[in-house]
Amino acid sequence: MANFQLMRELHQDGTTKIVLLILDGLGGMQMETGGLSELEAAKTPHMDRLASEGVLGQIVPIRLGITPGSGPAHLSLFGYDPLEFDVRRGVLEASGVGMNIGGDVVAARGNFCTVDGDGNITDRRAGRIPSEDAIPIVDRLAEITIPGVKVKVKHLREYRFAITIAGEGLETEIADTDPQNTGVPPLPAQAEEPGSQKTADLFNRWIELAREVLREEPKANALTLRGFSKDPKLPQFPEIYGLRAACVAVYPMYRGVSRLVGMHVHDFEGEKPEDEFSAAASIWDDYDFFFIHIKKTDSKGEDGDFDGKSGVIEDVDAALPLLLNLKPDVIAITGDHSTPTKLKKHSWHPVPLLLWSPATARQDPLEAFGEKYCASGGLGTFPGQDLMQLLMAHAGRLAKYGA
Amino acid sequence: MANFQLMRELHQDGTTKIVLLILDGLGGMQMETGGLSELEAAKTPHMDRLASEGVLGQIVPIRLGITPGSGPAHLSLFGYDPLEFDVRRGVLEASGVGMNIGGDVVAARGNFCTVDGDGNITDRRAGRIPSEDAIPIVDRLAEITIPGVKVKVKHLREYRFAITIAGEGLETEIADTDPQNTGVPPLPAQAEEPGSQKTADLFNRWIELAREVLREEPKANALTLRGFSKDPKLPQFPEIYGLRAACVAVYPMYRGVSRLVGMHVHDFEGEKPEDEFSAAASIWDDYDFFFIHIKKTDSKGEDGDFDGKSGVIEDVDAALPLLLNLKPDVIAITGDHSTPTKLKKHSWHPVPLLLWSPATARQDPLEAFGEKYCASGGLGTFPGQDLMQLLMAHAGRLAKYGA
Repeated sequence: MANFQLMRELHQDGTTKIVLLILDGLGGMQMETGGLSELEAAKTPHMDRLASEGVLGQIVPIRLGITPGSGPAHLSLFGYDPLEFDVRRGVLEASGVGMNIGGDVVAARGNFCTVDGDGNITDRRAGRIPSEDAIPIVDRLAEITIPGVKVKVKHLREYRFAITIAGEGLETEIADTDPQNTGVPPLPAQAEEPGSQKTADLFNRWIELAREVLREEPKANALTLRGFSKDPKLPQFPEIYGLRAACVAVYPMYRGVSRLVGMHVHDFEGEKPEDEFSAAASIWDDYDFFFIHIKKTDSKGEDGDFDGKSGVIEDVDAALPLLLNLKPDVIAITGDHSTPTKLKKHSWHPVPLLLWSPATARQDPLEAFGEKYCASGGLGTFPGQDLMQLLMAHAGRLAKYGA
Repeated sequence: MANFQLMRELHQDGTTKIVLLILDGLGGMQMETGGLSELEAAKTPHMDRLASEGVLGQIVPIRLGITPGSGPAHLSLFGYDPLEFDVRRGVLEASGVGMNIGGDVVAARGNFCTVDGDGNITDRRAGRIPSEDAIPIVDRLAEITIPGVKVKVKHLREYRFAITIAGEGLETEIADTDPQNTGVPPLPAQAEEPGSQKTADLFNRWIELAREVLREEPKANALTLRGFSKDPKLPQFPEIYGLRAACVAVYPMYRGVSRLVGMHVHDFEGEKPEDEFSAAASIWDDYDFFFIHIKKTDSKGEDGDFDGKSGVIEDVDAALPLLLNLKPDVIAITGDHSTPTKLKKHSWHPVPLLLWSPATARQDPLEAFGEKYCASGGLGTFPGQDLMQLLMAHAGRLAKYGA
């Protein structure tokens, strides 16, 4: 496992640039015996060239057999053991849309849902209403106030929003209010230890007021909250690795986890791979490390859309020259976890990794980027938490250990 | 990571012989895209035969991405986690030339250097003066005495020497006096905590007296000290593994680390691979485990001499029959770390490993010894600290764990 103290002792200055390009849920598998994975089926001439010049491997995001959520999966990529650092959804999302989560602030992630006349849930995601429908509702919720505390609500994407309550003596041991089922009503915010009772009461007060606001909304007449949490005060990435680090990501959660570890989160227009690569180019001189996050590989996998997932990979590959023209010293292309189309959800399978670093990588004989090649790659199969150490080494950013 | 307690519980007697043949800095890489490594380019018919009969793998000396110094790298090979056992240069070198480091003795490594009329360093290694020039100077330094303590100085190789001071209440938190730069004077020995002030004063006193001795030396008119340290009192290798263990090495540092872990350090004439293998033969009946260390692979790598490094590997291969004729049961051929000629220094890359044990090794289908083969070897990629456990197992030296 990555050793932050060792990194702090050994990291050294340099002018090298590192790119960590994450295709969310990249790892896949065959749909039927003998078939290709999404990555293997995709036509990726640029990645294949990098693979043939570089070295492959597989990373295990958390532990063998453990399927990660997106938060833990990204912490792991940044070198943080997710079993040690517990970062919950609320602060991740709130931080991702730039809400203040410092001090005595408790954050939660909200989902709109629909309920029937008896208050029982009919759709846990309110028909996945689009952002343009959700934003006006969030704006109305944002007007709710509770005496003695500061409540803020901000839209995330589609049917999702973030809420923060700032006050004194607030705690976070509160169960999610999503019953994970339809046909039953949303749960109240239930304190799981006495110290969190006051905070649970505040959230229940807000839920009650919100219920009034939502009562007549046709598309989203109720809500659930989850991931009650505070600023986890994580060790800071730039300090650990001695890298000026930037995040280029579209979705709030990934921007949130980057902000929590102390990266600069870059604002830019557009959502396509080429927009993200251009965004990286626009701040190229100001940073040493670029975390670039592509979301849609995961979404297509969860949708069960094999060709769609391969297509997203091909789109990224087609845009890659924009990134390569910047002449990074080290590029790692991998995922935060696997999302095999066949399973339609996150999985525990190791994630294919391509490491390209012409000056320092020991080439292996593999000629293309894909799961089968990566399984016999020169880097072997190793914990995702160690990836940063490897990237630092290849970038000439680590001094020798011991005489 | 190796588990000493487990080894102590499980090791069992036997008549098998284990050879750990270390080619220092063995791991290499291509000089240009698509090229071979030094090991791959070398003609090694004997090693290739052992590879085809045995099993390959890769070891990670310290942690992924961490470039080891020679001391930590060897501790790892012997099963000691170098992050847990901090063994510094002074005791390694002093121990390597047989100086007494037990009790209240502080050791340091000395380098001759040259300074100009203002006392500023002009060459940090005194033009790498050969041993024959350095020995008479060391002999003069050895005459320096300090009341109340015992000072000893001994030549190592070329421009290097070891110094020990034995006394009461001596401590080792003292910074190196090498400023790591030319154009500035050597630093004084600076205590990094109050308890080490007395020791620092003693070393500074000695440095002052040494300055008088060196003043008129044309080739080495100054010196620096580094690696102030005491006996680390390491757990002892023969006791952990139940093996009578011998070290066959030319260079003091490797002899030193072997002595610190409790191996018998064998004296012999000559420096060539065949001299070392003959030395092992001469004590074959008296030991169960033979650590044989070849230095020049590392030196040639650091010199940037690709063909030279391949040549040393070929020399070792040519001499191998001397070793094979002894009929060892288990041979491991690997390095303590990589020293790719392309990088001209130690590196973090995994080290190729060949394990030959005809009675017990599970063969993999690989036909030659080289980085690319080792990356897909049957042993996988694993921490160097676990190598001893594997060698013990293959030698039939470990009992079953549990019923």
